[in-house]
Amino acid sequence: MILHVKKDIDKNLLNNVVNYYNGVLLEKDEYFIIISSKNSNIKNEWQQYIIEKFELNSECQLSSREYKKETKRIDLPCGYIGGDEKNTIIIAGPCAVESEQQIFESAKFIKSLGINAFRAGLYKSRSSPYTFQGLGDKGLNLLYKIKNEFNLIIVSEVRDITNFDKIANLADILQVGAKAMYDQAILRACGESSKPVLLKRHFGANISDFIQATEFILSAGNEKVILCERGIRTFETKTRFTLDLTGVAYMKKYLNLPVVVDPSHAMGYSYGVPALTKACMAMGIDGLLIEVHPSPQKALSDAKQQLNHKEFTDLMVSLKRIAKAIDKNII
Amino acid sequence: MILHVKKDIDKNLLNNVVNYYNGVLLEKDEYFIIISSKNSNIKNEWQQYIIEKFELNSECQLSSREYKKETKRIDLPCGYIGGDEKNTIIIAGPCAVESEQQIFESAKFIKSLGINAFRAGLYKSRSSPYTFQGLGDKGLNLLYKIKNEFNLIIVSEVRDITNFDKIANLADILQVGAKAMYDQAILRACGESSKPVLLKRHFGANISDFIQATEFILSAGNEKVILCERGIRTFETKTRFTLDLTGVAYMKKYLNLPVVVDPSHAMGYSYGVPALTKACMAMGIDGLLIEVHPSPQKALSDAKQQLNHKEFTDLMVSLKRIAKAIDKNII
Amino acid sequence: MILHVKKDIDKNLLNNVVNYYNGVLLEKDEYFIIISSKNSNIKNEWQQYIIEKFELNSECQLSSREYKKETKRIDLPCGYIGGDEKNTIIIAGPCAVESEQQIFESAKFIKSLGINAFRAGLYKSRSSPYTFQGLGDKGLNLLYKIKNEFNLIIVSEVRDITNFDKIANLADILQVGAKAMYDQAILRACGESSKPVLLKRHFGANISDFIQATEFILSAGNEKVILCERGIRTFETKTRFTLDLTGVAYMKKYLNLPVVVDPSHAMGYSYGVPALTKACMAMGIDGLLIEVHPSPQKALSDAKQQLNHKEFTDLMVSLKRIAKAIDKNII
Amino acid sequence: MILHVKKDIDKNLLNNVVNYYNGVLLEKDEYFIIISSKNSNIKNEWQQYIIEKFELNSECQLSSREYKKETKRIDLPCGYIGGDEKNTIIIAGPCAVESEQQIFESAKFIKSLGINAFRAGLYKSRSSPYTFQGLGDKGLNLLYKIKNEFNLIIVSEVRDITNFDKIANLADILQVGAKAMYDQAILRACGESSKPVLLKRHFGANISDFIQATEFILSAGNEKVILCERGIRTFETKTRFTLDLTGVAYMKKYLNLPVVVDPSHAMGYSYGVPALTKACMAMGIDGLLIEVHPSPQKALSDAKQQLNHKEFTDLMVSLKRIAKAIDKNII
Repeated sequence: MILHVKKDIDKNLLNNVVNYYNGVLLEKDEYFIIISSKNSNIKNEWQQYIIEKFELNSECQLSSREYKKETKRIDLPCGYIGGDEKNTIIIAGPCAVESEQQIFESAKFIKSLGINAFRAGLYKSRSSPYTFQGLGDKGLNLLYKIKNEFNLIIVSEVRDITNFDKIANLADILQVGAKAMYDQAILRACGESSKPVLLKRHFGANISDFIQATEFILSAGNEKVILCERGIRTFETKTRFTLDLTGVAYMKKYLNLPVVVDPSHAMGYSYGVPALTKACMAMGIDGLLIEVHPSPQKALSDAKQQLNHKEFTDLMVSLKRIAKAIDKNII
Repeated sequence: MILHVKKDIDKNLLNNVVNYYNGVLLEKDEYFIIISSKNSNIKNEWQQYIIEKFELNSECQLSSREYKKETKRIDLPCGYIGGDEKNTIIIAGPCAVESEQQIFESAKFIKSLGINAFRAGLYKSRSSPYTFQGLGDKGLNLLYKIKNEFNLIIVSEVRDITNFDKIANLADILQVGAKAMYDQAILRACGESSKPVLLKRHFGANISDFIQATEFILSAGNEKVILCERGIRTFETKTRFTLDLTGVAYMKKYLNLPVVVDPSHAMGYSYGVPALTKACMAMGIDGLLIEVHPSPQKALSDAKQQLNHKEFTDLMVSLKRIAKAIDKNII
Repeated sequence: MILHVKKDIDKNLLNNVVNYYNGVLLEKDEYFIIISSKNSNIKNEWQQYIIEKFELNSECQLSSREYKKETKRIDLPCGYIGGDEKNTIIIAGPCAVESEQQIFESAKFIKSLGINAFRAGLYKSRSSPYTFQGLGDKGLNLLYKIKNEFNLIIVSEVRDITNFDKIANLADILQVGAKAMYDQAILRACGESSKPVLLKRHFGANISDFIQATEFILSAGNEKVILCERGIRTFETKTRFTLDLTGVAYMKKYLNLPVVVDPSHAMGYSYGVPALTKACMAMGIDGLLIEVHPSPQKALSDAKQQLNHKEFTDLMVSLKRIAKAIDKNII
Repeated sequence: MILHVKKDIDKNLLNNVVNYYNGVLLEKDEYFIIISSKNSNIKNEWQQYIIEKFELNSECQLSSREYKKETKRIDLPCGYIGGDEKNTIIIAGPCAVESEQQIFESAKFIKSLGINAFRAGLYKSRSSPYTFQGLGDKGLNLLYKIKNEFNLIIVSEVRDITNFDKIANLADILQVGAKAMYDQAILRACGESSKPVLLKRHFGANISDFIQATEFILSAGNEKVILCERGIRTFETKTRFTLDLTGVAYMKKYLNLPVVVDPSHAMGYSYGVPALTKACMAMGIDGLLIEVHPSPQKALSDAKQQLNHKEFTDLMVSLKRIAKAIDKNII
């Protein structure tokens, strides 16, 4: 249940109402919002302060189309996503920052194709402690350089709360990786940030869990959440994960947030990435996150799944044709 | 391992070779084929009879692109699928034959859109014994009428071996439903049939099992197998199943058989079917199997997932535009 | 909904009632049973014929403890399972009949441990067509010999409907393998059989599907169904399958049928079988199905998961101690 | 690969070796340990410093029985687990600290049964932001009181790195919850702690990921890791999760760390907890984590799965009998 409450309510009374419903309080310019996990009746003496009441039928509250029908519009330096859903953003780049040469070569290539958003990780959340963990702080400066020199939007991942501020200062879109989706320290920090957050679905998360992670951010005050599907873990192991596009169809139907898909991590092998990327584009989703590397076979992480520059260039030609066929605009 | 063996080999010797490798024997016009689960050396005295030897690195044998690189071409009255992969077949129609009126209305509508292949089930493999089980024998005549009156290709499902011959006589494409994928009586009968077989992947089957079910049919002599992905069972239950398009990308890469996708059963809800169908088309797959019903809400089975005629008509407009964008031809 | 209907009802009226509820009719000595997928009101004029009405809240009907609280008692030559749940049956033996020597050695060993039920397959439902498919008809005679010579209960598997009668004549308990759980020809034949049926859960079946497969048999007239959990397919592939003992706890709580567990197929590796078997025994389940082979490493199928005679002998010692600790009796 | 390196090696040379193998360095009293993700040859000039080399065949390194065969012994105030594997620890208590009365009633009850280890959460990692999040800092004092007054070992959960130190100071065993298993900030902090860590497997983690999370802690210097299986997410949703005891059998076979099982979270319903707990005991695992609450139906979290005092008392009687039957000792 969501209540919109008038701003002229007495502070003590407001707290009483919040406590009565075991609710979470959120302050907006126009009204207070109280979110409660249960639908309840409003006491008569409180009715005068209630602007609107939304009874909701699922774990989905602020993110629900029952609450707000239209998709949240996220404004970015290169345009918007969500809103009227005319635009699809392409976010491309290597898995990780590896060296100055590699990252400049990548950025130059991405920019040359007219793409505006660049992805690259500094603090990698690797499965094993015995493999490349990312350049970390040493690479921060390189991403700042890229950002300025190529005028690219930077999308980079927070591994854990200890590097949150560094990424939050640098990035235009804060990426929360799949493994961090359940990290409550990160979710709470995202809620207090003013940056757009690209929240990846954990590969073990059902949509219900994913929605509720989103609600942690939204209910703490940050409305700019972009959902990202990147494959779930199933009994099929010929591919790295299983891309859940039936789940994406569900999210587009019931949630009021933009949805981006990352086919690279789902597939785990570059051969399947172009076909899946085209599929996502034809579905009309709001964005695509694609790994591309100057020399994939030499990459220090995710070597098998990154496209090379030739493959990616060819893919962009197809994407533009499909976008046109479904009346979407690539930004 | 697959061996191509000269036709002039002595019968006894041939049997010796087959037994030596615990192999399966298959006779072709040009040569004998022996398939064995293991790669082995060929005895010197047998070398003279061996035309070619294929060492294969997986459970995938006759269906492997390592054995035959090009996709198997399946010729149908309305054109072909597979081969050079220029064509995508649309197979549409209701879940089940329910009445003369319903099925004629359906067929007329499908035909009016220029679609050539019609799906409708007679013997339904339902989860519960207490729900509609299909018209069974009573509906056979109706499908024969449709076939003749509208000149449509009929795709219909064998529930179990007791209705195999009835469907095999009627249908242009024999459909083996997901629940029957492990049914060895059906697989063996399909192997002896001359009809094209559309084999659906069981929702509990990994690709390895799916491939091997295919091999039962291929190794018994029927080359005309069409693979069909229709969703697998995962922890995500907001949708009926999870459509495994990462798996489809794998199959297109490694298997030499055409691949058709059924988004209706995967999604389980009509709202998601158009977006998923467009996604599959953009991937460039060989066919689509879509449930459409004159009055979905009155359907006796799969009521939630069937498109109505308006939704399907709109979808076809989009599919044609996407097909053009990726240089594919709808048949 | 289940209705118990008086035997003196007029045949035409009975049919009317059945059709009205889209029900399934089952005749018992004491009453007719009508099972319908929905709970409905009873028309006034029919009330006089209704002995009892059961409104049920799930897909589970004849198998539900809401319908019959006590566990179905299955009487076997060596004792009973179910009923007061005091007994646990051990069913042991090799995966497949391979040769006269192997099967006699097995049977003699099993008998020597005081075990009464012997398992061995003739018609194997293998994943691949290129591996050992079982001795088939050639082995039938061997199992008849075992049965007579050692006075053992025979548990053997129906692969498909074409070998149903042969197994039904031979076996004391008809085993329906996991891959055949969705085979409607087999389920319907089981319903018409008078033999106890051990129905294995398909590795892709959720409990809802498993229950409904059971209902196919029960509603066709055969009450003697034994459920068997043997592992489900999950993202964990270090083991062959994942044994679903949380699911077994559910089944014991809500279903009125005996439950047997097969840890051998779930684990897929002999090293884990003893610990899992002990776990199942301590849970108090109704039976255990265990693969044991005179020389596991030479077995023609399931070589990795079969215990050798020494391992099995040791295991039986532990099982007896645990049975005693939980006041159960091994039969 | 793991190398044991003599302590008298030159620091620069040591660093060279570490860098050459992209290794992780760990200092022990007797030797340095270098862990590398690949098996490699040792340069001739380094041979003199290498005490021992372990070539390992999986992602499992310090935790592998190929490296150290015996199970790590963890000494606790009430005895040890692991080592010769004679002991099983019972860790019981409510899901969360809710009030002084509740927690004292719980602790008194637990102590009265002769149990030494008490579990209760302060910082709950809930799925939803709109439900009870735990007492947090306000409850810390209550757990200190319990610890002193009842002389109980305290097991409590770190939700995120911001409450790590508070729990690390209080608890005898630091619990890392399933949702935190991928939290790299927590894993790294655990590695630097001297407290035993009970690491729960994430419900989306395969064993490979679980092992590697363990390696993050071990390779940072903390050897005292206890593994905890608490259910994985599968397509079966009649139960909250699926308890992976086949996986536990794998872990006991291949890993040198003690394994504890939490049947309460796996099952999600109290009715199944006793049977599953007995099953785990009979498997011979090293510990059990069980939720028990004075009034489960009033619990602020996990209300459905907590046992009441009567149920738990009865369960303990059975556990003792089973422990005796398999020659284990409950501590």
